[in-house]
Amino acid sequence: MDLVLDGDGPLYLQLARALREAMAAGRLGNGTRLPSSRELAYDLQLSRTTVVAAYEHLRTEGFIAGRVGSGSYVTSPWTAPVRPPPPRRAVVAQSDFSRRTRAYCALDDIPGRRPPGMRHAFQFGVPMVNTALTAQWVRELARAAPYVQPGYPRIQGLPALREAVARHVGRSRGVACNADDVLIVGGTQQALALIARVLLDPGDEVALEEPHYFAARTLLQVHGARLTGVPVDADGLQVERLPDPAAKLTYVTPSHQFPTGAVLSHERRLALLEYARMGSGWIVEDDYDGEFRHDQQPVRALQELDRDGRVLYIGSFSKTLFPALRLGYVIMPAGLKDDLLAAKWTDDFACPPLDQAALANFISAGGYERHLRQVTRKLAERRRLLRTLLAEHCGDRLDITDSHAGMHLVAWVRDMPASEGEALVRAAAERKLALYSIAPCYLQPPDRTGLIMGYSAMSPGEIRDAVALFARCLALFPRRSEGERKRPALYLARSSW
Amino acid sequence: MDLVLDGDGPLYLQLARALREAMAAGRLGNGTRLPSSRELAYDLQLSRTTVVAAYEHLRTEGFIAGRVGSGSYVTSPWTAPVRPPPPRRAVVAQSDFSRRTRAYCALDDIPGRRPPGMRHAFQFGVPMVNTALTAQWVRELARAAPYVQPGYPRIQGLPALREAVARHVGRSRGVACNADDVLIVGGTQQALALIARVLLDPGDEVALEEPHYFAARTLLQVHGARLTGVPVDADGLQVERLPDPAAKLTYVTPSHQFPTGAVLSHERRLALLEYARMGSGWIVEDDYDGEFRHDQQPVRALQELDRDGRVLYIGSFSKTLFPALRLGYVIMPAGLKDDLLAAKWTDDFACPPLDQAALANFISAGGYERHLRQVTRKLAERRRLLRTLLAEHCGDRLDITDSHAGMHLVAWVRDMPASEGEALVRAAAERKLALYSIAPCYLQPPDRTGLIMGYSAMSPGEIRDAVALFARCLALFPRRSEGERKRPALYLARSSW
Repeated sequence: MDLVLDGDGPLYLQLARALREAMAAGRLGNGTRLPSSRELAYDLQLSRTTVVAAYEHLRTEGFIAGRVGSGSYVTSPWTAPVRPPPPRRAVVAQSDFSRRTRAYCALDDIPGRRPPGMRHAFQFGVPMVNTALTAQWVRELARAAPYVQPGYPRIQGLPALREAVARHVGRSRGVACNADDVLIVGGTQQALALIARVLLDPGDEVALEEPHYFAARTLLQVHGARLTGVPVDADGLQVERLPDPAAKLTYVTPSHQFPTGAVLSHERRLALLEYARMGSGWIVEDDYDGEFRHDQQPVRALQELDRDGRVLYIGSFSKTLFPALRLGYVIMPAGLKDDLLAAKWTDDFACPPLDQAALANFISAGGYERHLRQVTRKLAERRRLLRTLLAEHCGDRLDITDSHAGMHLVAWVRDMPASEGEALVRAAAERKLALYSIAPCYLQPPDRTGLIMGYSAMSPGEIRDAVALFARCLALFPRRSEGERKRPALYLARSSW
Repeated sequence: MDLVLDGDGPLYLQLARALREAMAAGRLGNGTRLPSSRELAYDLQLSRTTVVAAYEHLRTEGFIAGRVGSGSYVTSPWTAPVRPPPPRRAVVAQSDFSRRTRAYCALDDIPGRRPPGMRHAFQFGVPMVNTALTAQWVRELARAAPYVQPGYPRIQGLPALREAVARHVGRSRGVACNADDVLIVGGTQQALALIARVLLDPGDEVALEEPHYFAARTLLQVHGARLTGVPVDADGLQVERLPDPAAKLTYVTPSHQFPTGAVLSHERRLALLEYARMGSGWIVEDDYDGEFRHDQQPVRALQELDRDGRVLYIGSFSKTLFPALRLGYVIMPAGLKDDLLAAKWTDDFACPPLDQAALANFISAGGYERHLRQVTRKLAERRRLLRTLLAEHCGDRLDITDSHAGMHLVAWVRDMPASEGEALVRAAAERKLALYSIAPCYLQPPDRTGLIMGYSAMSPGEIRDAVALFARCLALFPRRSEGERKRPALYLARSSW
């Protein structure tokens, strides 16, 4: 505690004044526990008698409650600091980076969040609720803790975790790598931020799928990238439409395109690798949920075909375990390893090693693959249920883009222009159902209505209720022949049903 | 597992071939546990009989060990992947950022590390070994885990931790703030990286103390800052020697200058704040170990005097608890809050919430302050012991710069030029004593020998042994009158004592 005695009169009164001033300044807020008289005496190099007398004085004046021996608490009459905080003044952006975050990051309005007060939400990219996993995770932490060095951790990540990740992605995704190629990072977002700084100067061109993952787009924009959207069809990115001359970086989700679910065809994979090779460009393969394939064998990673060291493969445990675990990885091409390590060191030295050690054990002992199998089975059930119910309730209104994988599907509402889709989302929100438009995933949103419908965070019962509610919302906007554009009467009436 | 059956002959042989190919490609390494036949059958949509037959076949051929029911393991004849990894080819730096990391980050040679094989090391900035703290930390994690949301955490940090930090820095450091002003980050390094991106464009001028913390300097260089070193004396940064026109940013350690330990005087604090105000500049106050004052009342934070919202106060739990806990904080001036939050979101969304929740409990329940008091008491004892022993063994050779605070002191060796100091460090290393030159803390190292002598990670017994060894090393370089510059005979002989 920062107390200055004013040297005026008895010591105990000086101390009491100093404590009262700290309360007035808001540094000792209401309810704060004061140090014991012994502790404070030691800290201030005063006799304990002096401190006890000062506390008694303040108690008499009503500034302190509680008793000697059992702890004293501040009962300050000042509910807020007396000194006003400096005004929250508008400051002009101080750097190009800040100018870009101001232009592109709308933190109060990040797409995909669950608004408060909703009864149901087709949220995507969020994991299943799994209390058993939380309990298991704490056990893993306790098991790992005694073996973790308390000092500064290694930049590249714990060797045991890098080893476990290399084996896992080799087995489950066909990724060709060893532990030396693995960089442990704080999730996909950090992976991409490091890559952007290592590969891109402001103004460099980046090609990305249209539609795509909006957080990745925003991150690239903040780093000053010039973005070119390349359309996606049932075979994934239309490689023949990539920009010429070649983009410096191409960001793709080949195993399960986000959000459409398309798998990049073998021919296009080879063409994409050739495109990068010829143009001396780079490819980021974001395999954000490639491990959640439901009905067939997993799709191989693009990285496996890379003979030229041009693919940066990134993965995350946010989707497969839980997002609160801020861990992911980059499989680095050899030529960029040193640059990526330097970028990681510059940013935050390294990731917390205790989480890494627990995760390494969890993977090596087989718990992670067991967990993946269980979750994938449940996801497949929920996906089938959602598809069946959507077909039953509003099958004639929707075109479903599905993919035998992942945690969401895309539902296109037939003949509904984008503006009406926005009204649908608002109408649903009024009825406590959160819907998620696909529009934020586009640089140039199409004039039709697409919804990303996540099913991972809903129980089968919730899926039933939510689809019934969705069908009622959709019924507010009856299907019309082309040409009609006026809003439906029911919606204008805002029925309170 | 990524297995493709070739369609040739019986299914079980196809599967066995696919598994063998995975071994040859290194995707199934020696010792890898195979999934149970039931699990693999489910994954591949094959009958269990087929999988059991394939496993039996491989067992016969010697590719698998272990028994059905108790788990099978790969005993691959290929010790390394058959497919060679892509060559680690030199790649030209792909961005200005990478050009600068290549110029300034020497990750293999970061100052301050403990080299392997040392008997003793005067390492600085590392915390006390404290196994009780590790055990307590695991209990805190287990206690917090059930209450932590598994989803994506808040960008700014857990409200409970921000509240606890605001109260703590208010009480112990006089920092004027509330929970809204606190940003939780992954340690001091991330705090500074975010600030650099928000405030600096390449080429902007940054003033910093000379000497200073080398990791901060490197980080600023990597962000393209033009650095100006400003000398430090017994009253801290010589504010009157700051560059004119004013630097965009001034980076200071006013409570306990790193590494000299000087405290910035009150007059200079006011002058520094005025300098920033007049020049529309910013001040980073790095309070890296301001809580470890041994003998007197804590020094107030510079931030408390800031009436203009120009100080960014940063603190860390790496030194006070343990570096493996990657958590720190920025007390943000109101005008930069949105920009700093956007930079944090862009970098990694947010810090892991479980660590935050455990730390919030630990602080709020008083455990953190109790821990600080215990550690400070021990640090004071070790500091006194080190000073006494240095005076006894080699008092006539050293000028000690001390500070009643922190975890290290600075010892200047009288009349020893820098080149001889380097020889001293090497000679000590040969005798398994790690010494740490102050030279890396300078933009322009002086031609004399200064050593940063950390005592936090050594027991009193180790300090005794280490000082005795240090004195013997120093004796290899006898004191000479000015003018002599040849190396001492003893050192040239490299005695193996």
